[in-house]
Amino acid sequence: MADPRFFKLAGPFRLDALAEISGATPAGGASPDAVFADVAPLESAGASDVSFLDNRKYVASFQTSGAGLCVVAPEMADKAPAGMALLLSPDPYRAYACIAQAFYPVVAPEPWVAPTAWVDPAATVAEGCRLEPGAVVQAGAVIGRRCRVGANAVIGVGVVLGDDCTVGANATISHALIGSRVVLYPGVRIGQDGFGFAMGPQGHLKVPQLGRVVIGNGVEIGANATIDRGAGPDTVIGDGCMIDNLVQIGHNVQLGRGCVIVAQVGISGSTRLGDFVAAGGQAGITGHLRIGAGARIAAQAGVMRDIAPGETVGGAPAVPMTDWLRQTAILGKMARKKG
Amino acid sequence: MADPRFFKLAGPFRLDALAEISGATPAGGASPDAVFADVAPLESAGASDVSFLDNRKYVASFQTSGAGLCVVAPEMADKAPAGMALLLSPDPYRAYACIAQAFYPVVAPEPWVAPTAWVDPAATVAEGCRLEPGAVVQAGAVIGRRCRVGANAVIGVGVVLGDDCTVGANATISHALIGSRVVLYPGVRIGQDGFGFAMGPQGHLKVPQLGRVVIGNGVEIGANATIDRGAGPDTVIGDGCMIDNLVQIGHNVQLGRGCVIVAQVGISGSTRLGDFVAAGGQAGITGHLRIGAGARIAAQAGVMRDIAPGETVGGAPAVPMTDWLRQTAILGKMARKKG
Amino acid sequence: MADPRFFKLAGPFRLDALAEISGATPAGGASPDAVFADVAPLESAGASDVSFLDNRKYVASFQTSGAGLCVVAPEMADKAPAGMALLLSPDPYRAYACIAQAFYPVVAPEPWVAPTAWVDPAATVAEGCRLEPGAVVQAGAVIGRRCRVGANAVIGVGVVLGDDCTVGANATISHALIGSRVVLYPGVRIGQDGFGFAMGPQGHLKVPQLGRVVIGNGVEIGANATIDRGAGPDTVIGDGCMIDNLVQIGHNVQLGRGCVIVAQVGISGSTRLGDFVAAGGQAGITGHLRIGAGARIAAQAGVMRDIAPGETVGGAPAVPMTDWLRQTAILGKMARKKG
Repeated sequence: MADPRFFKLAGPFRLDALAEISGATPAGGASPDAVFADVAPLESAGASDVSFLDNRKYVASFQTSGAGLCVVAPEMADKAPAGMALLLSPDPYRAYACIAQAFYPVVAPEPWVAPTAWVDPAATVAEGCRLEPGAVVQAGAVIGRRCRVGANAVIGVGVVLGDDCTVGANATISHALIGSRVVLYPGVRIGQDGFGFAMGPQGHLKVPQLGRVVIGNGVEIGANATIDRGAGPDTVIGDGCMIDNLVQIGHNVQLGRGCVIVAQVGISGSTRLGDFVAAGGQAGITGHLRIGAGARIAAQAGVMRDIAPGETVGGAPAVPMTDWLRQTAILGKMARKKG
Repeated sequence: MADPRFFKLAGPFRLDALAEISGATPAGGASPDAVFADVAPLESAGASDVSFLDNRKYVASFQTSGAGLCVVAPEMADKAPAGMALLLSPDPYRAYACIAQAFYPVVAPEPWVAPTAWVDPAATVAEGCRLEPGAVVQAGAVIGRRCRVGANAVIGVGVVLGDDCTVGANATISHALIGSRVVLYPGVRIGQDGFGFAMGPQGHLKVPQLGRVVIGNGVEIGANATIDRGAGPDTVIGDGCMIDNLVQIGHNVQLGRGCVIVAQVGISGSTRLGDFVAAGGQAGITGHLRIGAGARIAAQAGVMRDIAPGETVGGAPAVPMTDWLRQTAILGKMARKKG
Repeated sequence: MADPRFFKLAGPFRLDALAEISGATPAGGASPDAVFADVAPLESAGASDVSFLDNRKYVASFQTSGAGLCVVAPEMADKAPAGMALLLSPDPYRAYACIAQAFYPVVAPEPWVAPTAWVDPAATVAEGCRLEPGAVVQAGAVIGRRCRVGANAVIGVGVVLGDDCTVGANATISHALIGSRVVLYPGVRIGQDGFGFAMGPQGHLKVPQLGRVVIGNGVEIGANATIDRGAGPDTVIGDGCMIDNLVQIGHNVQLGRGCVIVAQVGISGSTRLGDFVAAGGQAGITGHLRIGAGARIAAQAGVMRDIAPGETVGGAPAVPMTDWLRQTAILGKMARKKG
């Protein structure tokens, strides 16, 4: 059971309810009115817990798990231990996500403006918001309904936030228009000046950064990630993008819908990503490029040219994935021959 | 036009004034008393806007731009659309920077100490400063004239800040002496302990970090960047350095004047960079090295040896740029042959 | 002498006391009752200062140093300048650390709850704590004795902190159980949601992150580092780990005791490190791996497979260090031949 100091459990739920919630199909002979009380990892789950198997690395844990109910792909069903009820899904991780959300639902914040929060008289905060201690909302900012603004977070002058957003503690937003259901983790920095200046031996001359950051709906941005505002055009993050911790996004960058950007990736100025691009951890993308929809960029790759839609690349400088695998194989073979 | 919620427009300006401000030469037959009202990107600029062309990738946008006036290099003049006035400059980006600064001038802060700011009685804050809500200035700190200290920023014990500095929201400074006209972006961390300890199987033993961070004039340090204080000597950042987001600078590092350090670069302890060194995004530099003045380090390079002044290096471990290009070409050819 | 605005000097100490404190052996003929007043780097040390030599790069500075006393390895003794007293130790850096700690001892905080700090009535703060201005301690949090909570730091709901911890300014902790003598530097983010969601073209579905971050005793975590809480299991940081600035640690990661993780390293979800693993700056480790005790990972390495205990690896994808050195040598030779 999740630590009750931090998490609030809902339920219990019947098997047939969990099947409906998840879209998965019961199997293994369990009664539809069997009742489950919680979710748990395979290793620690007990008879009243729901667990899941998604990664083949953990089949052994599945085979010895004490979970009463497990969400799995149909082809894994015959590996289940005796007595375990199953929910079969072609996408067990997604089905499990639905179930875990039912047991641990997101609840609307308890409305509050902490006495040490600061709300400028010229700011607008809609009903149902919670402003934690030390939160600051500056002049002209407009905060939608049921938003949480974490302790010591700062919403800058003129920033617009939609409904049901969460701004983590100590996060900072300026020069930004943000949609609804956006989650900004602690320490996120949005809207500061881009890295724009005219270099020269007599000193570098700052170029005013006159754009904004425009963020769609349902976006999540990880802890201590940084997104600079545009230099003239806007920096744009499309609906449903998932951005991990410590990611850097430069000025004028545009991300399409549903991009997945893993931790410590850096995307340089004016580069545009299509919808559902995925970039692995610590990858770097040079400025002024076009990355096509559905492209996949391996961890630590260094992308220095445009990438076609759907292409998968790796290495630095990044090449098609098969080429990169060949390069590393050839190098490895040469080194072993030499050794 | 830049979003008035975030930016305040000055002007308008006559063509001859803009020529003087930027040092560029009018061309294209426009009247010196033609008036321009704003700056804008090539794609969205209209007849009263000033735009610029600096990157050849955007020549097509230049050729179809509706901008009334454009700053360009002389050799691009004949590609201008009919009716567009021009300002010719060998460094159009720098000339544009001057013009954009005129339209969107930096203004001195409106002096204020927010009621929820905390200023220790033993701190000194000069005239004209603005301390936003939740800002903290600790004992012995000395803040120069016309500084802005952002909301929930923390100026630690004994820190000295020159005149006209901006400290971003939620930034933290300790153990540091900082010049004038320095801009620290939100979430910057300056002056914490360096990563210094004596390793051992019985546990790692902390070595007191007894130096400071000394920062020159006109330096900018990007969001969530971290600069550790010296272990005994100081960590030093020279005048006019431009440091991007999420950069890590270890203890005892010295940067000369005008260095440009792009996002997510890491510089390990006791390494010294000469004047005007440039390091591309995600590059890493090992400790105890000397990087000569004017050296250029490619993005993602891994520098493991001293670099001569003016040298350009790439790859990991970093080698002269031409060697790195050859290495990647050879590897690519071998992989394709094999394929 | 360290800047008295930032550091408070103890002492002076006699040579025999320093020998006892450091476990080092006097040599060079100095009197046991010679007295030393401070520590200083080799270059600036004077007759009353203690310095040290640990890195052979600095032998020349040693040979010309004016330090009255120097901690060195026995084999360096004959290079000492005339008149310098010596303390001989097989681990001079560690011996110096003991001496520097004596001159600049860590002192317990002066207890205080700043008027602008916020302590929830349902939080527990033990005796001897110092809560700086703007610090926030939320409901259910339990803070041990003699802890410092820096200005504008946020201790979230239910978080447990042991004794003698330091939480840096603007740091954020949630969903975490933390041991004693832990130092969290400014801007650290601990306990936020891991990067867990079921990807899909219809949108990515968040998976509730139901674990915690569990941190042992004597751990240090660098500025702006991020440690996500577990998805179901906990994220665990073992006793005595040293984690540098801007490090990313994903959900469910486990670090053994005494690991050393240099700046900007990223460790992906569910990977486990044994005791005393060392990872160089900017290295990346893929998820779901096992890294054996005592393994060493070179800077910028990209680890994509399990690593055996004690193994040293480099490169991306990471291979045994000798193989990586051969690979880079071969590539270099081919490029030069071609050139």
